[in-house]
Amino acid sequence: MSPERGFPAEEFADRTSRCQTMMAASGIDAILVCTEPEVRYFTGFHTPFWQSPTRPWFTVVPAEGKPRAVIPSIGAASMSATWIDDVRTWSSPQPDDDGVSLLIECIEEVAGKSATIGLPMGPETHVRMPLRDLDRLRSSLGDFVDVTDIISGLRMVKSDREIEKHRHICGLVSNAFDELPNLLSTGMSEREAFSAFRGEILRQGADEVPYLVGATGPGGIDDIIRQPSDRLIADGDLLIFDTGSTFDGYFSDFDRNFAFTEAAQDAKDAYRAVWEATEAGLATVRPGATTTEVFSAMNEVLKANGSLGNDVGRMGHGLGMQVTEWPSHTASDDTPLEENMVLTLEPGLVWAPGKAMVHEENLVVRADGAELLSRRAAPELPIIGAS
Amino acid sequence: MSPERGFPAEEFADRTSRCQTMMAASGIDAILVCTEPEVRYFTGFHTPFWQSPTRPWFTVVPAEGKPRAVIPSIGAASMSATWIDDVRTWSSPQPDDDGVSLLIECIEEVAGKSATIGLPMGPETHVRMPLRDLDRLRSSLGDFVDVTDIISGLRMVKSDREIEKHRHICGLVSNAFDELPNLLSTGMSEREAFSAFRGEILRQGADEVPYLVGATGPGGIDDIIRQPSDRLIADGDLLIFDTGSTFDGYFSDFDRNFAFTEAAQDAKDAYRAVWEATEAGLATVRPGATTTEVFSAMNEVLKANGSLGNDVGRMGHGLGMQVTEWPSHTASDDTPLEENMVLTLEPGLVWAPGKAMVHEENLVVRADGAELLSRRAAPELPIIGAS
Repeated sequence: MSPERGFPAEEFADRTSRCQTMMAASGIDAILVCTEPEVRYFTGFHTPFWQSPTRPWFTVVPAEGKPRAVIPSIGAASMSATWIDDVRTWSSPQPDDDGVSLLIECIEEVAGKSATIGLPMGPETHVRMPLRDLDRLRSSLGDFVDVTDIISGLRMVKSDREIEKHRHICGLVSNAFDELPNLLSTGMSEREAFSAFRGEILRQGADEVPYLVGATGPGGIDDIIRQPSDRLIADGDLLIFDTGSTFDGYFSDFDRNFAFTEAAQDAKDAYRAVWEATEAGLATVRPGATTTEVFSAMNEVLKANGSLGNDVGRMGHGLGMQVTEWPSHTASDDTPLEENMVLTLEPGLVWAPGKAMVHEENLVVRADGAELLSRRAAPELPIIGAS
Repeated sequence: MSPERGFPAEEFADRTSRCQTMMAASGIDAILVCTEPEVRYFTGFHTPFWQSPTRPWFTVVPAEGKPRAVIPSIGAASMSATWIDDVRTWSSPQPDDDGVSLLIECIEEVAGKSATIGLPMGPETHVRMPLRDLDRLRSSLGDFVDVTDIISGLRMVKSDREIEKHRHICGLVSNAFDELPNLLSTGMSEREAFSAFRGEILRQGADEVPYLVGATGPGGIDDIIRQPSDRLIADGDLLIFDTGSTFDGYFSDFDRNFAFTEAAQDAKDAYRAVWEATEAGLATVRPGATTTEVFSAMNEVLKANGSLGNDVGRMGHGLGMQVTEWPSHTASDDTPLEENMVLTLEPGLVWAPGKAMVHEENLVVRADGAELLSRRAAPELPIIGAS
């Protein structure tokens, strides 16, 4: 059964209160956020309208009380339906002053004229407003300081309600992957295969398939973030599909690999190696372990299997309202894992030039270790249409 | 038949050369872009990977010669398959220096140490990299100046190849809208209706449905950017669907309105009013007319039909690689239309409190006026399941 849509007001009250505790500890008078996941995190405002680059959207988290929304009037009805009481709007687009004066007024009202204002400025963030307007904002108000640590600290640890949404979409995508052997065959084009898979994910009940990459290749794949071509799938091909699909705005993000008709021993060995690397990662995950320890556990297995390194730059990451979030499993990330973080493990092996195999699972960190959200991949390379 | 995928190198060479002519006229030594549509515009690099906020991606347009890509190594294979020759990569994520040094080096190499560097800083733009890194970049290089006018001037006028992609996706979505009376009926939930429509758009051959909003309501609709609820469609309901769907990375963006079983006269009148307003807009579109003239033509019709104003802030916009692009049809935008601009007309009428009707068509500006890309909506409110 599907989890309930949206969240009760207490979820947002809890997020806000945790944020305000961290703000107080850091001497922050107000936090400004202006990107889709951050605004949604604090307000519940959920719309694909963010794809339009025309209008900026702002949310101000004061030291006390509910966040305040400063948004284009086109969003007034939707924002007023959330738990937010203070919704200030202007008719946008208005290039000469697209909400900037209204935002300055709101921030001065909640934090005073010489406030310390938090803005995410660090890794994985950007400021979604015209730079010209941001410069005006920075010169009109008090000090802006980086609060990436506060925002990532909040968002990395998921609530039970968030985890249920992740579990649901991971289950649906697992079902869709299980159906692939019945949907795909040699002679289909990559484009037809993508379309069949996308359709199946939606048929299983996903809301959307915002992220779908994949590739096929004879005995190996050189580029795992490709879009489909007209290439026809042939005997001996490998195929990878990697999808970030959503339920109620929460992502799954995992891939699966298949061979068609037959597979060479080196491909089978590479598959087994990334599967074993994932096992090593799963065994390492527990509260207190670091992303670097998880990386190292997986990397040891890959090195023992003749890894030539890879181009991905990490072996998995956080998962949430975005298809990738903090933290990253890298040799230097060193983020301590906490209970209820939702993570991917994504070891990638280049076993010969131009031949890559990437494996991915989704999990939630529990007191006693990793709990899988994706249905564990088969330990041996699945072969579609084996004779 | 589907248009060809991608573009030949001459398309990118032409874009780059037009850009460089404008750069020379403005004394710009290099332009830096870092958002998906701009990087794709100059390179052809096309991937949903941009949904991951983790890694920044840069393209530098020098005064002469091909653009240069400064990108994470995970994109090396895909970027090298484009017309770009100079692809510089680093292993990302690397929070301490996520491409910034490499980018500074590249810009200094093509433009010198005290160059005038163009960066889009104006309406509808943002800088997609951590603010901390942007600050470092701005303090390390010469002068940064706003080139929103150059970028929007280039992107607003479409090539024949771009227009064919728009025409194709608008045709597919028109087909899907035509099927709606066969797919929808009273008793379905909004969520089921969304799912049926999304499935039909994909079945018609669209690549993706990144943008889909809509709503139903008894005799009227108060919020046109909503996501679906579990509300069941009933006799006398109005329904609006508005979708931005894509073919090969180019958008359609238009809506359609329907009633179920029966419609009140005020709803029929409101529909007719926005249809007539669109006629007035279509009659105004020609090279040399301005967005403000197009706005005024539509607005006159709405005022004559008892408009209470609306929250949208404009009556249509540019269309391209994003679901909305420059320019906007507003009372003050005043952009002169040029041949081969692709635009939407989107008059919205609030005829009673909480009752809005928005109509939208897509067109290309031709020497002799508007050429429709969407199949023109019926002049009277279509009623599904009329007895």
